[in-house]
Amino acid sequence: MNFIHADFLLETPEARTLYHDYAEGLPIIDYHCHLSPEAIAADRRFRSLTEIWLAGDHYKWRAMRTCGVDERFITGNASDREKFDRWAATVPRTLRNPLYHWTHLELARVFGIDDTLLSSATAGVVWERCGALLGMPQLSACGILRSMNVEVLCTVDDPVDSLEFHARIRDEEGPGPRVLPTFRADRAMAVEHPPALQSYCGMLAESSGTEIRSLADFIGALRLRHEYFHSMGCRISDHGLDAVYAAEGPGGAAGPEAVFRNILRGVAPSAGEAVALRSAILRELALMDDEQGWAQQIHVGALRNVRSAMMRLRGPDAGCDAIGDAPLASSLARFLDSLDREGRLPRTILFNLNPRDNELVAAMAGCFQDGLTAGKIQYGPAWWFLDTEGGMTRQIDALSWLGILGEFVGMVTDSRSFLSFPRHEYFRRVLCNVLGRDMARGAIPPDAALVGGLVQDVCYRNARRWFRFPGTEHVSHTVTTDEAHG
Amino acid sequence: MNFIHADFLLETPEARTLYHDYAEGLPIIDYHCHLSPEAIAADRRFRSLTEIWLAGDHYKWRAMRTCGVDERFITGNASDREKFDRWAATVPRTLRNPLYHWTHLELARVFGIDDTLLSSATAGVVWERCGALLGMPQLSACGILRSMNVEVLCTVDDPVDSLEFHARIRDEEGPGPRVLPTFRADRAMAVEHPPALQSYCGMLAESSGTEIRSLADFIGALRLRHEYFHSMGCRISDHGLDAVYAAEGPGGAAGPEAVFRNILRGVAPSAGEAVALRSAILRELALMDDEQGWAQQIHVGALRNVRSAMMRLRGPDAGCDAIGDAPLASSLARFLDSLDREGRLPRTILFNLNPRDNELVAAMAGCFQDGLTAGKIQYGPAWWFLDTEGGMTRQIDALSWLGILGEFVGMVTDSRSFLSFPRHEYFRRVLCNVLGRDMARGAIPPDAALVGGLVQDVCYRNARRWFRFPGTEHVSHTVTTDEAHG
Amino acid sequence: MNFIHADFLLETPEARTLYHDYAEGLPIIDYHCHLSPEAIAADRRFRSLTEIWLAGDHYKWRAMRTCGVDERFITGNASDREKFDRWAATVPRTLRNPLYHWTHLELARVFGIDDTLLSSATAGVVWERCGALLGMPQLSACGILRSMNVEVLCTVDDPVDSLEFHARIRDEEGPGPRVLPTFRADRAMAVEHPPALQSYCGMLAESSGTEIRSLADFIGALRLRHEYFHSMGCRISDHGLDAVYAAEGPGGAAGPEAVFRNILRGVAPSAGEAVALRSAILRELALMDDEQGWAQQIHVGALRNVRSAMMRLRGPDAGCDAIGDAPLASSLARFLDSLDREGRLPRTILFNLNPRDNELVAAMAGCFQDGLTAGKIQYGPAWWFLDTEGGMTRQIDALSWLGILGEFVGMVTDSRSFLSFPRHEYFRRVLCNVLGRDMARGAIPPDAALVGGLVQDVCYRNARRWFRFPGTEHVSHTVTTDEAHG
Repeated sequence: MNFIHADFLLETPEARTLYHDYAEGLPIIDYHCHLSPEAIAADRRFRSLTEIWLAGDHYKWRAMRTCGVDERFITGNASDREKFDRWAATVPRTLRNPLYHWTHLELARVFGIDDTLLSSATAGVVWERCGALLGMPQLSACGILRSMNVEVLCTVDDPVDSLEFHARIRDEEGPGPRVLPTFRADRAMAVEHPPALQSYCGMLAESSGTEIRSLADFIGALRLRHEYFHSMGCRISDHGLDAVYAAEGPGGAAGPEAVFRNILRGVAPSAGEAVALRSAILRELALMDDEQGWAQQIHVGALRNVRSAMMRLRGPDAGCDAIGDAPLASSLARFLDSLDREGRLPRTILFNLNPRDNELVAAMAGCFQDGLTAGKIQYGPAWWFLDTEGGMTRQIDALSWLGILGEFVGMVTDSRSFLSFPRHEYFRRVLCNVLGRDMARGAIPPDAALVGGLVQDVCYRNARRWFRFPGTEHVSHTVTTDEAHG
Repeated sequence: MNFIHADFLLETPEARTLYHDYAEGLPIIDYHCHLSPEAIAADRRFRSLTEIWLAGDHYKWRAMRTCGVDERFITGNASDREKFDRWAATVPRTLRNPLYHWTHLELARVFGIDDTLLSSATAGVVWERCGALLGMPQLSACGILRSMNVEVLCTVDDPVDSLEFHARIRDEEGPGPRVLPTFRADRAMAVEHPPALQSYCGMLAESSGTEIRSLADFIGALRLRHEYFHSMGCRISDHGLDAVYAAEGPGGAAGPEAVFRNILRGVAPSAGEAVALRSAILRELALMDDEQGWAQQIHVGALRNVRSAMMRLRGPDAGCDAIGDAPLASSLARFLDSLDREGRLPRTILFNLNPRDNELVAAMAGCFQDGLTAGKIQYGPAWWFLDTEGGMTRQIDALSWLGILGEFVGMVTDSRSFLSFPRHEYFRRVLCNVLGRDMARGAIPPDAALVGGLVQDVCYRNARRWFRFPGTEHVSHTVTTDEAHG
Repeated sequence: MNFIHADFLLETPEARTLYHDYAEGLPIIDYHCHLSPEAIAADRRFRSLTEIWLAGDHYKWRAMRTCGVDERFITGNASDREKFDRWAATVPRTLRNPLYHWTHLELARVFGIDDTLLSSATAGVVWERCGALLGMPQLSACGILRSMNVEVLCTVDDPVDSLEFHARIRDEEGPGPRVLPTFRADRAMAVEHPPALQSYCGMLAESSGTEIRSLADFIGALRLRHEYFHSMGCRISDHGLDAVYAAEGPGGAAGPEAVFRNILRGVAPSAGEAVALRSAILRELALMDDEQGWAQQIHVGALRNVRSAMMRLRGPDAGCDAIGDAPLASSLARFLDSLDREGRLPRTILFNLNPRDNELVAAMAGCFQDGLTAGKIQYGPAWWFLDTEGGMTRQIDALSWLGILGEFVGMVTDSRSFLSFPRHEYFRRVLCNVLGRDMARGAIPPDAALVGGLVQDVCYRNARRWFRFPGTEHVSHTVTTDEAHG
């Protein structure tokens, strides 16, 4: 039997029924990924397996470095084939790491190679077989999106982005997925270094056609961009935060407006001032989301760029990010409550990177459910380092035990690679396996229609309803308990 | 086969033997619950399933809000039947949440309904069948306690409480359980708001028949109430703490006495002063426990009332409490050591709400075992958000791996509902399942008498011995290793 | 079937194949233990089972105290037999604690007693059978090391230690293991109490033959000892830290040199000064390791000696240590980066005691892999309270999911007892069981040679290669993917 076979990871008959009868055929709503809209607009072709598979994939880079591969063969100037061979040699070392599963799922689903395990011994044949396919239309950026059954795809974009590629994709829209932007204003909150913020203000002024001489101007310009993103179909903001900023600071001379003006004059803020300013900006962005009916995504728990040598050499996203342990509960509660008590809390997805906070986040989400929007506050899917079979299982467990699994909006790839869509299949298999095991042992009823309905909600229907993407606003909530979602 | 059947959650023959031969028939010692002594004294009857099942149950409220049920049907002015119907519609969405198990265990054990899964489709018939039974004597408050085989039940009471209902229950004591109070002085430690503490001092002065003009007076009044509670059979104190208060502050002008007097004069304490004062009070309460031979319960890790809109609308305990992440190790160690080094540490049960601290708490308990009282420091059972099949399993695992499972005093309902006693059955099934699986895989000996003895200790005998409730002080420690408990 | 049998803990046919065909016969490299080099040099004989098994074993002491055994029978003046009988009576209470497994593995492997479970009922016969064997040569210190197939053993030693016993063992080296020292300078970092540091400076001055009047002198003296240790075959340093010290403080009057000189004059440092000084010393020690090609071990997360009554009575290591919860991510990242950015980061093993930090540590290790040394930064094995079947499984899981299991250097006993070597067998069984289960369920390929190679790497070959102990420097990395380790 091939390693990747029809029942991969499905350990009970119940799991197999759930997966094959309910999950397998569903479209993909990938509401958070880092794919390039330019590549989609250009329907990019890839020159080699290395370009489409290894370039930009810091998961693989970390694995290769750990196995003693020289940087030259990872991000350096070695040839595509040399780099691929090193990766192939590393793969057998990644047993039990998600890379092992991802690698073989991607070879099977995108290239149809399900009879070969990648290693030094098979590197040549895999290189040849994939290379031959890379020239074909179904292996272009759009070809892959179509063959993977992607219905909606949300990229991550800076407010100053022109969204020209999104426009081009929209205008040419054929049978492919809707490709929508996400409003990620992290650079607007990077206030520590005056030159960086000044430079960002320049870009923001230009893209918004306004002048920025104050925090009010700055917020106003962001709001114009927010409105423009909305017109382009954007319905989600996103924040990558090292901590949740929820300072309730003073106004006046020590307030955010004054601090902001000082930064424009080149005066770096104190640590406390920076938090106060970021808190003010984050709050304004949430209010914009609420006004426009968007959802906000909060990503917390990463400690980024900890290896300064690599930061100098390759910049960010080079595989040198870690998991942080900053306090979370009080500031997250304050942030959510400060909006909720004014009736201004948008739908929110909370992603945590330190798994020790899984239950904390799941419990916090439950506090701010308002009974008006089902699943209003979401405990987000297992993210980044946690996107593993075990990590997903723990997220599903924490969410199930402390909240309502059936209201979950499901998985994302969070990937920079066009080959990553089988991560949805991976999640669906894990979800069906967890539920199937519970059916088999009598912990939930052996009712395939009941449990299969939950599977369909989590894997597709909830996301379609919850996000309110253009064209899907009127999707009804098709669950068994209609009354509960009045 | 019915969902709730004889072998529910018992996955191995060994587990079934343990449960049916050793655990199933044991009485219940529910040493921590929030039932109303007034309802017991009055042998209350319930007008509807909504009143007995949904009123006050913030677990269900959270689930309903998450599923998009309007607050009117949760805590609002909708009719009992409307509220029940919304709950019934929500139940199928709670798959994998303990509510799903609790709901059907309670229907089966209290109402004898084990052939029906609650949903919109079955709401009517369940409402009718339960309604018919609610008029019967076995469904009164005391009828339920008797049918559930409750031997001892400890309510949670404020020191100013007159305990009149406990007295009435005691005086009428028939075949029902002993109903004993617990001394929970949380309001005595809520020192931040002078008016609240002043008001509490007024109540405490009245109930103790003393004047309170100083911290010494305050402690003295609490001591009188502690003695009164003792005379009423109380043998446990309880503290709900957002952090363990173990400041070793100065005396004199900046000391707790001075801070307390300032509060009586309306001066709010600083954060540091508040901690110092709470530390002083917590310590005095522990000393009282030690003098009287009581056990103290410490509940840490909750972050309460985080949603201020709901706090204004419904007050506390409305389903808007979260899990906190305050540092724990140093303060907990200091608190326990400050008592232990004077030979004044009472028996203690440590409950944590953030499961990331399970191992920390289990290890800390092990440090202060004194060899004189078996299981002197207890790592308490899985509490609140952790009272799930998985949460209990993790508590059992952490306790087993870092401590001695066989000395554990076992489960509590911690509930506000008379229908919650099947949570003891739930725990017993989980415990037997864990142990049975270990027997089946050879990780512990397949000796039913040995393992069954441990089950009986944990489910009943340890609590009966350890708590020293009136009438049970002389229960011997009936375990196999008598010498070890000399 | 005996409790300890050939397939103990091996739940699948795959696990049995992995263990018996790949792991079972491998030698032991115990790179971290607390055995006495004096006892090895003297080839010590043991007068009783109590002396060899209970003396110094604070794991057992905690268990006995928890079960209500009086201190007299634990660390007090009771007879050897009385103490043993209390331990035997405690053993059945330790079900699910690793002590139960360790006890019976040790009886089976060292004394050949695999047909008896220890309890009060069997205490007499076990005492007799073991006592008879204790007189035999194979039960001497060296006899045990030989019969346990120990190839390398690293003790833990203070820099001022003369290593005379290591010299004697080396000079007499016969068929036994290499016994190498570890450079553990914890006392050099205990700077809070001037008299203690002054006293330590005295010892260090004497052992190094230098005068110590400054921090530079102090570091210089440590460096001389480091060189001496190197000449004696030492290749590892070790640090037991309550937090990772990575302050980047000022120089000059407030700098570490000034603080150090003040301490020598009897002036205790402030908390901040102590951290700055410890940071400076820790950094210097790491630089020495880098110069000599050593690896450094970092142990974090313990909160030691929390029970002051026991500290006064018995001193440290008496079973009153807990798990701490100090912040870890930022300081650990700063420490590693401050060395890495200068190209001076030695190979490092990170041990954490609070399991909530498992994923944090595993992710951090991955950030500093440099591609030059395979597995350069190691997430260390499950340590102390985590050295349980479940704790090891979680460590293996976190390491596998976030890093590369196949580069792991494997297990240590970390023990003070000559009977503890079966803990390596215990780890190997757990590892094979985890991998065998994954093979059985199709999560990794059912290729015994592939997975068995990984088992051999983790259980023996990686340690042999990675540590570069004298005589093994030229061991090649014999894994399947030779190219990856160029």
